[in-house]
Amino acid sequence: MKTLEVALGSRSYPIHIGASLLGRAELILPQLAAPRVVIISNETVAPLYLECLAAPLVDAGVALERVVLPDGERYKDWQTLNLIHDALLGSHCERSTTLIALGGGVIGDLAGFAAATYQRGVPFIQAPTTLLAQVDSSVGGKTGINHPRGKNMVGAFWQPRAVIADMSTLASLPERELKAGLAEVIKTALIRDLPFFEWLEANLTRLLARETEALAEAVERCCRNKAEVVAADEREESREGGRALLNLGHTFGHAIETGLGYGVWLHGEAVAAGTAIAAELSHRLGWLDEDDAERVRRLIARAGLPVSGPRLGAERYIELMRHDKKVAAGRLRLVLLRGLGAAVTSAEVPESDIAAAINDCCERDD
Amino acid sequence: MKTLEVALGSRSYPIHIGASLLGRAELILPQLAAPRVVIISNETVAPLYLECLAAPLVDAGVALERVVLPDGERYKDWQTLNLIHDALLGSHCERSTTLIALGGGVIGDLAGFAAATYQRGVPFIQAPTTLLAQVDSSVGGKTGINHPRGKNMVGAFWQPRAVIADMSTLASLPERELKAGLAEVIKTALIRDLPFFEWLEANLTRLLARETEALAEAVERCCRNKAEVVAADEREESREGGRALLNLGHTFGHAIETGLGYGVWLHGEAVAAGTAIAAELSHRLGWLDEDDAERVRRLIARAGLPVSGPRLGAERYIELMRHDKKVAAGRLRLVLLRGLGAAVTSAEVPESDIAAAINDCCERDD
Repeated sequence: MKTLEVALGSRSYPIHIGASLLGRAELILPQLAAPRVVIISNETVAPLYLECLAAPLVDAGVALERVVLPDGERYKDWQTLNLIHDALLGSHCERSTTLIALGGGVIGDLAGFAAATYQRGVPFIQAPTTLLAQVDSSVGGKTGINHPRGKNMVGAFWQPRAVIADMSTLASLPERELKAGLAEVIKTALIRDLPFFEWLEANLTRLLARETEALAEAVERCCRNKAEVVAADEREESREGGRALLNLGHTFGHAIETGLGYGVWLHGEAVAAGTAIAAELSHRLGWLDEDDAERVRRLIARAGLPVSGPRLGAERYIELMRHDKKVAAGRLRLVLLRGLGAAVTSAEVPESDIAAAINDCCERDD
Repeated sequence: MKTLEVALGSRSYPIHIGASLLGRAELILPQLAAPRVVIISNETVAPLYLECLAAPLVDAGVALERVVLPDGERYKDWQTLNLIHDALLGSHCERSTTLIALGGGVIGDLAGFAAATYQRGVPFIQAPTTLLAQVDSSVGGKTGINHPRGKNMVGAFWQPRAVIADMSTLASLPERELKAGLAEVIKTALIRDLPFFEWLEANLTRLLARETEALAEAVERCCRNKAEVVAADEREESREGGRALLNLGHTFGHAIETGLGYGVWLHGEAVAAGTAIAAELSHRLGWLDEDDAERVRRLIARAGLPVSGPRLGAERYIELMRHDKKVAAGRLRLVLLRGLGAAVTSAEVPESDIAAAINDCCERDD
């Protein structure tokens, strides 16, 4: 097991990465304010891993309850959040009750937002079971739900007390979800870590074959990068770069997810296409060599991910992007590439260039 | 105009108290992150004061929108919160948009929680127009909504950028709401300020007659007390006293509000009866003289407020109180009086005493 730390003063927390961690109650017990836990999971993950996590806690004398939600991005909404609040109130959970999110990004975001808002805030722990959640969404304290008009539009910053990334859970991950997780891995490397990008070019086959050692290395390198960025700019307040850089591919990606309806494309698939569009736009602006843009596309494609978006039409993309949280003073603020491993933000890109890059990358609607 | 400060480091903010403040844009403009504001009000307050607040901002070049909600505690729920989020998204509001809550405690709690959760947090300003909101709920950053199982069960701590308490708005306040506000005034004095309690005994008639000078003095003394308590224990984490003391009368009061259905009794009315029950219980435990308990009851009654709760039965009260946020390790944690101006918390009170005090104070269900 390796342990990293997210350095946030009194709210610092560990990220544990390794095999067979879910059953290790000693990683959880020191974090509890009281011996009371509610595990929040979904119908897919719960049958596989919930008791593995629960049994040692019960053995240690923890009063434990289980909330099992339907599975899928389309349930990341008010109604499902209310199911959690109902369960917590129905069981008389107190402010010292700890919630544990056991699942992928949707469960982490939902359970985290429930923790942020139940009785104005209770502790929670992330136990991510998908590659995407392990490399990205479980770290950094972004929680929330979707709104019909936009992804993650309602939420809170609420840091977990610990993140437990158990590599063993990746064995059961559907192929499509493994690939979706690789989109965030590639994104992280592209933003600020050229050696990691080169490592991915050399080791992608091992990741696709689910070699535990390679997966653990990728998770660790992603978490290390993310922990540094979050520690420097916890609430995404930096005007230049900072945490906003982590959204490479996400403004285009959110437009794809919202435009198609949540859950049609997986989040990672939309981010992959969004990253390819961002690379294309960066190239069009003269910021990224043709060769480097091609390396981006090639790695995404080798991971079995889309390098083009669905044909919604450039106008519709831009309309959807206007709802993004990164809009500033009415201008689209995009994360683009000045090179491999060197992302920047810009609100100065002409819409005609944005539209052209979308049209180049996505099948035209004709 | 007087200005106090809530001292919370980088999140410190001013409380302005005085007459005709709503039209003074210079109190608001320096707080805006961008020249964009959404005023959130209700159908009762908006026709009276919204344009008074809006016009000078529009004149100063602020892009301004209005969200007018139905009026009443029963609308402090998910559905109404969603109306705010819908409006913000429909108008493409960005992270730099400032929300202004113009109304009583319900509007302040709802708009504050909308600000806490829209795009994971946007700035907001409190412009309280009821006595209750001016003396209590607009200060301190507690925001949230009700759940069918309990008051304020879902919410967040989210501090405003400023509080603007315009005494002029109290002229139009219905008699019943003025009295409800006095409940929180009496509560504040009882917790930690005996001289203020004596001042209230001497000046209650002036307050009921709405003398501006007396009202401003009461608001200022309440805000000064609350600002000190909040600065010392922002998130109600202190084990001994601290912010929890502000809940004197509220555990019983929330049981009344939830038990009768939100809005049947006003919050202040329920707090008044709850404070009388707390005084009775404190007397029963030998902590408060009979004379002092009688002074509490007399002041509450002179303010035209109830000194007994509805007859729900002691068992039902206690069942409802078990849902309160102040329950710890399954025990009811109550705020009681060791004297006038000297509140304490205790989780050691036998339930038989709690039940007896409820039965003494409330009409028996027979």
